[in-house]
Amino acid sequence: MELMKKASETINKILSEIKPPDAAAMAAAAARQAALAKPPGSLGKLEEISVRLAGITGDITPHIEKCRVIVMCADNGVCAEGVSSAPVSVTAAQAINMTRRLTGMSSIAAYFGDDVDVVDVGISTPYDCPEIFNAKIRPGTDNIAAGPAMTVDETIRAIEVGISSAKRAADDGIDVIGVGEMGIGNTTTSSAVLAALTEIPAKEITGRGGGLTDEAFARKLLVIDRALLLNKPDPGDVIDVLAKVGGFDIAAMCGVFLGAAAYRLPAVIDGFISAVAALAAYKIAPASREYMFPSHVSAEPGYSAAMEALGLDPWLSLDMRLGEGSGCPLAFRVMQAACAAMNGMAAFGGESGIDDGYLDEIRKKL
Amino acid sequence: MELMKKASETINKILSEIKPPDAAAMAAAAARQAALAKPPGSLGKLEEISVRLAGITGDITPHIEKCRVIVMCADNGVCAEGVSSAPVSVTAAQAINMTRRLTGMSSIAAYFGDDVDVVDVGISTPYDCPEIFNAKIRPGTDNIAAGPAMTVDETIRAIEVGISSAKRAADDGIDVIGVGEMGIGNTTTSSAVLAALTEIPAKEITGRGGGLTDEAFARKLLVIDRALLLNKPDPGDVIDVLAKVGGFDIAAMCGVFLGAAAYRLPAVIDGFISAVAALAAYKIAPASREYMFPSHVSAEPGYSAAMEALGLDPWLSLDMRLGEGSGCPLAFRVMQAACAAMNGMAAFGGESGIDDGYLDEIRKKL
Repeated sequence: MELMKKASETINKILSEIKPPDAAAMAAAAARQAALAKPPGSLGKLEEISVRLAGITGDITPHIEKCRVIVMCADNGVCAEGVSSAPVSVTAAQAINMTRRLTGMSSIAAYFGDDVDVVDVGISTPYDCPEIFNAKIRPGTDNIAAGPAMTVDETIRAIEVGISSAKRAADDGIDVIGVGEMGIGNTTTSSAVLAALTEIPAKEITGRGGGLTDEAFARKLLVIDRALLLNKPDPGDVIDVLAKVGGFDIAAMCGVFLGAAAYRLPAVIDGFISAVAALAAYKIAPASREYMFPSHVSAEPGYSAAMEALGLDPWLSLDMRLGEGSGCPLAFRVMQAACAAMNGMAAFGGESGIDDGYLDEIRKKL
Repeated sequence: MELMKKASETINKILSEIKPPDAAAMAAAAARQAALAKPPGSLGKLEEISVRLAGITGDITPHIEKCRVIVMCADNGVCAEGVSSAPVSVTAAQAINMTRRLTGMSSIAAYFGDDVDVVDVGISTPYDCPEIFNAKIRPGTDNIAAGPAMTVDETIRAIEVGISSAKRAADDGIDVIGVGEMGIGNTTTSSAVLAALTEIPAKEITGRGGGLTDEAFARKLLVIDRALLLNKPDPGDVIDVLAKVGGFDIAAMCGVFLGAAAYRLPAVIDGFISAVAALAAYKIAPASREYMFPSHVSAEPGYSAAMEALGLDPWLSLDMRLGEGSGCPLAFRVMQAACAAMNGMAAFGGESGIDDGYLDEIRKKL
């Protein structure tokens, strides 16, 4: 692992701990999949999921029981440009509502018994809610259309907040984490980060977020282009990109993905913002991708560009564009199904009552 | 509802009981969705699912708790033509394995606590397993490449088996059923039924099922074309199509979809064979479609043609092609997530702490 000059000792230590999944466990899991009583490959992505989870956990019959959605909440100075349909105060209101399981993601998570860890990494509106984990760097970033969002030091601290959240999950015995966010204005910063990292023109990867008018959407595009021209983020330097045109939420989510890989936790990507943060983590530490799992196709146009850059193919197609980590609880169920098939199915031969002739016949066709 | 001359009194009674979902409950549910604290439409298909479930159940905050996969098991005479990679005995072996939760679908269902109802509607291999519900019409159909699969009377009885299974689910207080199958050779009969019902050439909607060689695949196409030319099924007469080129499994699954609509139970379509049976039910009783829910995109090429004819858009993309109803347990979770969001989320205003200004602002944009 190449270490980063700009990063802190904490981050470089984490980067040095990211190793690929266990190849022997993956090979053993793939062999078990091939012996299960079904046409080879007929469980499709569930087979690949179970094999990768075996490599991550070192357990050939992996288990996904304790699930947690980590939600990075922060405000974005760029909201001053009128790029969002919702007022800034909604970030704080919805962060509180998540702790009460009253939002879209958190009500679904509550139904399935999943944990939710709501982290304040930079909410600007004052509030009183001890259930929110306080890791506030400051109340909102600066306006990317007028200068950098934050300093390099703040960016590093935000990444470290994410790493700490992944560590908290590992310490709590969590089996899988989902990476969500709440931050009015963060589809704007995400489009800017994605444009900077991939050098794709912003207009090809920018959408209407929570729901913008034509006029506000045109303004959003101009704001992103202005931010990129003014700040000149270096595509080869992820911390520079995050500091100049990102946000506390995206940087912290990037840290969650890095931490997940270091602590050997599978990490689910939610929608557009989560995918951009995952891509930032991948650009910092390519091996972190082996710990990432997709969930649903976001309706935001930049989502597919980010997933293509990551080489991941989402599982659910529900036209959702809520954010929060709302795709994660269903992705956890897909991973549980993958484990259930791996662990519960009979193998050919005695276990299944299907003789090896069938298996041989199928193998001949491979 | 137009009754069918050819059908039995039982079937015609069921058809007369199929009514559209409750429009008032759907309107009230849609109004509740619009009041929930999120950008309108941002939960995508989850919103549509919750609204349709409200119409089906009459409950504006619907609940999906008790889930059951109904698996119609039967053998197909067409296997004599060498159209399948697995021996006929696998139908019986896997039906038994399902009762023991050892197959792909049943191990996933067991993990999530879903019921499985394994129904023998025409297994040919003798076996001893009292956990299989015995509704055998006879041990396997005749070879469709040499004549009709079954008589009209047998077809009607198979449909009635499906209706009875739906009734058993309703009597047991089940909230949702999934419709699966086990029957070596049934991708051949399904392609033939789909070709007859849609008049699409068989070669465009036929795949390799469990995994055929090039030679066996070419034979499968010839067999389907021969069956259609020889039997001349009438595209306007679903019972004629099922009798001539279908199977006990497809006819019984068609009956499950009809029964589900009559007993006001949501019914999940699994893969290709299930989709063809759903299309047959839709052609008999168009209102039955309002009770159908898709699950996953099957890798079989005919699947998409059937779903297009049904006007349904699947939720999961997992490259699965196992059958059995293996997509149903995950579809149940999607439906539960839809209910959880509908029932758990705060509305704008006091409940959410988000003032109506945000709501008004969003509404202006609709």
